[in-house]
Amino acid sequence: MTRRHTTRFTIEFGDCDPAQIVFYPNFLKWIDSAARHFFAAAGVASWSEMEAATGIIGTPLVDVMAKFLRPATYGEEIAVESWIDEWRGKTFVMKHVVRRGDDVLVEAQETRVFARRHPEDPKRIQAVLPPEEVRRMVE
Amino acid sequence: MTRRHTTRFTIEFGDCDPAQIVFYPNFLKWIDSAARHFFAAAGVASWSEMEAATGIIGTPLVDVMAKFLRPATYGEEIAVESWIDEWRGKTFVMKHVVRRGDDVLVEAQETRVFARRHPEDPKRIQAVLPPEEVRRMVE
Amino acid sequence: MTRRHTTRFTIEFGDCDPAQIVFYPNFLKWIDSAARHFFAAAGVASWSEMEAATGIIGTPLVDVMAKFLRPATYGEEIAVESWIDEWRGKTFVMKHVVRRGDDVLVEAQETRVFARRHPEDPKRIQAVLPPEEVRRMVE
Amino acid sequence: MTRRHTTRFTIEFGDCDPAQIVFYPNFLKWIDSAARHFFAAAGVASWSEMEAATGIIGTPLVDVMAKFLRPATYGEEIAVESWIDEWRGKTFVMKHVVRRGDDVLVEAQETRVFARRHPEDPKRIQAVLPPEEVRRMVE
Repeated sequence: MTRRHTTRFTIEFGDCDPAQIVFYPNFLKWIDSAARHFFAAAGVASWSEMEAATGIIGTPLVDVMAKFLRPATYGEEIAVESWIDEWRGKTFVMKHVVRRGDDVLVEAQETRVFARRHPEDPKRIQAVLPPEEVRRMVE
Repeated sequence: MTRRHTTRFTIEFGDCDPAQIVFYPNFLKWIDSAARHFFAAAGVASWSEMEAATGIIGTPLVDVMAKFLRPATYGEEIAVESWIDEWRGKTFVMKHVVRRGDDVLVEAQETRVFARRHPEDPKRIQAVLPPEEVRRMVE
Repeated sequence: MTRRHTTRFTIEFGDCDPAQIVFYPNFLKWIDSAARHFFAAAGVASWSEMEAATGIIGTPLVDVMAKFLRPATYGEEIAVESWIDEWRGKTFVMKHVVRRGDDVLVEAQETRVFARRHPEDPKRIQAVLPPEEVRRMVE
Repeated sequence: MTRRHTTRFTIEFGDCDPAQIVFYPNFLKWIDSAARHFFAAAGVASWSEMEAATGIIGTPLVDVMAKFLRPATYGEEIAVESWIDEWRGKTFVMKHVVRRGDDVLVEAQETRVFARRHPEDPKRIQAVLPPEEVRRMVE
């Protein structure tokens, strides 16, 4: 059984563009938030606590794919269902389905890595293996 | 020869997240802006002028894929090179390469449609064939 | 008794900046959302429904003042309490208090007008008297 | 002679809301960026370099006031003129005028402090006196 987590959002006026529908990068903003809530719901510490403890600053993106099936507008409630679909060495794949009621609005897939600052250059980041403890918590 | 357009942006403090790097949906925000600048640079009217003339409200997304190759942070200048890679009936494919100097930061591909409001339900949108005049202008 | 409404938000990772605290314009984003929820909670139609019925496009800002008393960071829940403090002809004053638990984070005051598009130039907007029906609903 | 700096921005489609005008918190986003560019133009190091050298994480807001005189929409170019109006112990007052050509769109005033993380609680921040070197650079 794969652990799944659903995060709910309300679409606000300012999330929509002059076409009166959600400005699409905001769907990725909610999906990114849902990814963090997935870890938080499993009991994983916040990234700032994790950075203090392990040097890991979060799970930056390697790539993202998203399909936009239906538009949405402000005043609507959406739910993002998120799960980890695959662990691949240093990377892992998260899937997200954004729904409004029963209607699927967006399907997305993110490849992420756990990362820390590069020890020799704090402006660069470096992928690390997912911490075993975190893997156990989210599985 | 495919028409290409480059749009330049400065990464601001508020575009970056607690990991001190660009919050990834902001790359999509710049890419969306670059898509509009691509059309504007070819002389295509603003979407609000086009809506008044033709009912077309813009070019909403069907899907997007993006690969994040290097992180970036505030104070840096980026350039987004954009072109239309393919016309496929009602949809078209735009490609975007985001660079900081010679370094490629992000490669993205968007599938878009020209859309108007649904005549019977203004909350829905409807894909239409790309206007011939617009196609001529951007080719 | 003045009608008051409280809107709740979760602070997300992407709402915070490299100083690891909320990027301040995001507090204004939540306050703007709270202003709309105040009207929606009183039964006022969405701005797009109102535009169709009355030409009113919303309640754009005349001015805003905000005091930032305490910073906040991601993972925290905030509540924005909102009310109309005064009606002044075409303008009205909204007050908002942003709290995290009992701690006041932000106090803000917005002066807004009900506005419609200028009949001779759709790019300009024009203040109108608050509709009597809306005033009755929110008092 | 007070040092002044002008920062230019292009208003993008995604910066505008369903009323087709700039979503007002975005004006504060540009003003915040203009404040940082004011310091950068005077040769002050980036906040992340300053944090490494002095512990100062930036200049968070104490309060802001803004008057919105004219709306703006996408495709328009704006210029934000910024200067420090007053030093008051630990705080200082920045003024900003946002113009589109000769038209003033927004007038804003921010009170800011230089801040570092609280030595006993990294989640809190603490105001410090403006570094003398920074004061000299921006005067």
